[in-house]
Amino acid sequence: MARFRSGRAQMIDARKLYEIDGPFAFWRGGELSAVTLAYETWGALNPARDNAVLVFTGLSPSAHAAASSADPSRGWWGDMIGAGAPIDTNEFFVICVNSLGSCFGSTGPASVNPATGEPYRLDFPELALEDSAAAGARLLDHLGIDRLKCVVGPSMGGMTALAFCLMFPARSTALVSISSAFSADPFAIALRSLQREIVRADPLWIHGDYSSDAAPATGMRLARKLGMISYRSAAEWRKRFGRTRKVSGEHAQFTIEFEIESYLEAHSQKWIGSFDPNCYLYLSRAMDWFDAADHGPGIDAAMTRIALERALVVGVESDILFPPQRQRELALRLHAVGCGVDYNELASIQGHDSFLVDFDRFGPLMREFFEGLAGDVA
Amino acid sequence: MARFRSGRAQMIDARKLYEIDGPFAFWRGGELSAVTLAYETWGALNPARDNAVLVFTGLSPSAHAAASSADPSRGWWGDMIGAGAPIDTNEFFVICVNSLGSCFGSTGPASVNPATGEPYRLDFPELALEDSAAAGARLLDHLGIDRLKCVVGPSMGGMTALAFCLMFPARSTALVSISSAFSADPFAIALRSLQREIVRADPLWIHGDYSSDAAPATGMRLARKLGMISYRSAAEWRKRFGRTRKVSGEHAQFTIEFEIESYLEAHSQKWIGSFDPNCYLYLSRAMDWFDAADHGPGIDAAMTRIALERALVVGVESDILFPPQRQRELALRLHAVGCGVDYNELASIQGHDSFLVDFDRFGPLMREFFEGLAGDVA
Repeated sequence: MARFRSGRAQMIDARKLYEIDGPFAFWRGGELSAVTLAYETWGALNPARDNAVLVFTGLSPSAHAAASSADPSRGWWGDMIGAGAPIDTNEFFVICVNSLGSCFGSTGPASVNPATGEPYRLDFPELALEDSAAAGARLLDHLGIDRLKCVVGPSMGGMTALAFCLMFPARSTALVSISSAFSADPFAIALRSLQREIVRADPLWIHGDYSSDAAPATGMRLARKLGMISYRSAAEWRKRFGRTRKVSGEHAQFTIEFEIESYLEAHSQKWIGSFDPNCYLYLSRAMDWFDAADHGPGIDAAMTRIALERALVVGVESDILFPPQRQRELALRLHAVGCGVDYNELASIQGHDSFLVDFDRFGPLMREFFEGLAGDVA
Repeated sequence: MARFRSGRAQMIDARKLYEIDGPFAFWRGGELSAVTLAYETWGALNPARDNAVLVFTGLSPSAHAAASSADPSRGWWGDMIGAGAPIDTNEFFVICVNSLGSCFGSTGPASVNPATGEPYRLDFPELALEDSAAAGARLLDHLGIDRLKCVVGPSMGGMTALAFCLMFPARSTALVSISSAFSADPFAIALRSLQREIVRADPLWIHGDYSSDAAPATGMRLARKLGMISYRSAAEWRKRFGRTRKVSGEHAQFTIEFEIESYLEAHSQKWIGSFDPNCYLYLSRAMDWFDAADHGPGIDAAMTRIALERALVVGVESDILFPPQRQRELALRLHAVGCGVDYNELASIQGHDSFLVDFDRFGPLMREFFEGLAGDVA
């Protein structure tokens, strides 16, 4: 593991870039003349071109979901994708795309507008997850893939994957939706709305016009802490940290005293240099906006667009951001429109982030589902 | 109700002030030469002086728990305390004290230091909930009450009430602990630590040296939003707000679009003028620090100090700040040291704040417990 991490430090980069041909029209209006998508692939497309799996990511990750020869660093889903892994690259051609609007190679608010030579910043069109889904479909065109074996998404990626199935029903046989929902709850909107307000309240945000060497780091750091509070669970932290202090007996009124405070500080410090604040604001709001019901009108009409044969829907008991009731609803609605659904509610204690860390529970589930799909591969 | 609210607008004030005789020594060190406690009372002390009930409050409220002739405004627990109410002032002499360190009449960081003529600000000694409990005991001395019929506390007040029972075991027959705990979980510490950091990140905080006409209002407003997110529940907001927008069809990238955002904004705006930021920081940290185990050493030894005859412990299923497991633990530990315990876990959907709003569930429980205690009143 340490060896792989040092591989990342060498800035090896397996990203492929696809420049979308012609202007890209946004779901809510506006268009850009030039849009780039960053993606990575693992395994090989078979001659029938029918063994492809497309992964849409959560808000934070890049397209580097797993190690490859070009970039041996572990990737954010390193245990899940690979030769012999649950999403087995001996069977499947796996594609992971950096979301439109993000800042790891795909075009977003931090990208340079060719018309001005300056970053788009807040001139970037309003972003919807439907735009990320449509961009994914354009990438499939480019790769010569008519129909996916499966589209996969955890968290925000699950919403994007569902948008993809609603907009392009003929383009995937199966869906894996993990810790996601067909629309965000007001509790999740409240958390994200506050995170964004914390970023915007940083005097260095300057209505999006911060310079790259003076970004609103305090706002981003505090927003990330709130993110982590919503991504994990009280039960996990009780077990990991309890009331342990950094220094025994210390009482720090205005600085870090408890291990839990130190943990949040360390993780949020790591994040602030890596993610562009305006990209964060756009992607975060896109999650609030997403509502499958917009494809109806109404959720009932929307779901009749779905033409999936199979779906795996997974929720986690301790997830407060996308509570398991939301996955249950999605599973029932998929079942009601004729899709064969595996639904699982896991007892992981790591909350919304469980899919990133609880491989013991997620691995076997994913393996079984993908083995079932592999049986269909020519 | 509207009439009572207009009563409050007239600034009628039922507060009584008690100046503690002599210097007041703080639990963690330091002392103040002059400490004032603000309190209110309802009902009458009986000749045996044994029908008193002392209420310690949560972090935010004043001593105005209920209406009285001097101040007919409703009070924060207006349904719970009064003639014929569950805590029946025809039976009991009820006292509610504004916590030491708060800013509604009791001495705190916003109070003027007589030695300098300036507010104490961060020169105020480190505050522990044991200090609030000790100040409460001094008030009872002043009122000529040796032993309470019951000490009551919701949330932070429950911790203060427990501290009172640990420090002065002979001074109360019974305890009511609502949505509290014998120590804070790391999840709650994380939330409060972030709230405090949000306040301190406001450039107007100036290490506590803000002027009264330029307080760190943005930091307080955002901290309050986070407070409300932790005080209520996802289920309640789903029911109340769903995904309703302020203006139908609106898409607001950087301003308020959803009803839930509007609700948080309105409530946090109301709060910022009323609560002093430094007082907030002190009380918030005191909640992180409180640990009944400090009275042992260790929680087992600490609990042997308890000499209560009866206790009512109430938790709420949807409370993420003080989850019901913590109240269950407290109930079991009280039972283990010979206290007769009523334990209730309520299905209220209003989260930690349920005790303020779900009178239908809390009222009957409280009435039954206090009727049991009233049977013992001479």
